[in-house]
Amino acid sequence: MIGIVIVTHGQLAEVLIDTAELIVGSRPEAMIAVSINITEDVDKLRGKVARAIKEVTRKRGTLILTDMFGGTPSNLSYSFLKEDQVEVVSGVNLPIVIKAINSRERMGLRELAESLESFGKRSISMASGILRGNKRG
Amino acid sequence: MIGIVIVTHGQLAEVLIDTAELIVGSRPEAMIAVSINITEDVDKLRGKVARAIKEVTRKRGTLILTDMFGGTPSNLSYSFLKEDQVEVVSGVNLPIVIKAINSRERMGLRELAESLESFGKRSISMASGILRGNKRG
Repeated sequence: MIGIVIVTHGQLAEVLIDTAELIVGSRPEAMIAVSINITEDVDKLRGKVARAIKEVTRKRGTLILTDMFGGTPSNLSYSFLKEDQVEVVSGVNLPIVIKAINSRERMGLRELAESLESFGKRSISMASGILRGNKRG
Repeated sequence: MIGIVIVTHGQLAEVLIDTAELIVGSRPEAMIAVSINITEDVDKLRGKVARAIKEVTRKRGTLILTDMFGGTPSNLSYSFLKEDQVEVVSGVNLPIVIKAINSRERMGLRELAESLESFGKRSISMASGILRGNKRG
């Protein structure tokens, strides 16, 4: 099992987990939300992320999902990147969270992160483009 | 100004708007969250979406952002698709919401939806891929 930490501004991480729970039907284990208040001290925030990683990490590493490339939650998370132990995917949406829950037992950490990046991109679609049969990127 | 309705399971839409407000620094006008409780009656849910569209629509139409292709919030929203009046983009994440707020005054509705689909896909990235200089899709 790969641990998952979602790091975002405000309550977004917590609500993504609540919504995923609603859809998959049970509280996902080894999955934690970290809420970043950007007025807090950076060392304190880094400590919150470190504790969350420690709490969810099992044998196969930890995936961090963040809200937005370039934001404080992402920047903080990048400092924990470590080959085979911590990967970070930014731009989290609900399909990524659900796919992560459903895929993390049958993939390695890097494979999971790569697969979520690609799945996440495909999960964003303009309806009239689909209906008109346009190419989807 | 293009109106924006975010339609999701549970509290996700509301929290996306709260988080965007935190980042852009003010409450976005003509932007409403619709929370879908899938145990509610479909006609009642459709009425909630219809009222939200009516409330935010200005001269240039309404963009609906939904959480996940194939889910009830998306399926409900698709029934409101109307050329030049309502477009739907599914798979919403925080970068899409912020970009929508910042771009909607200088684009037409279809152009905005197309640009958000493409921007949203680029907003999802695996950090170690960026650091290694891999191609980003």
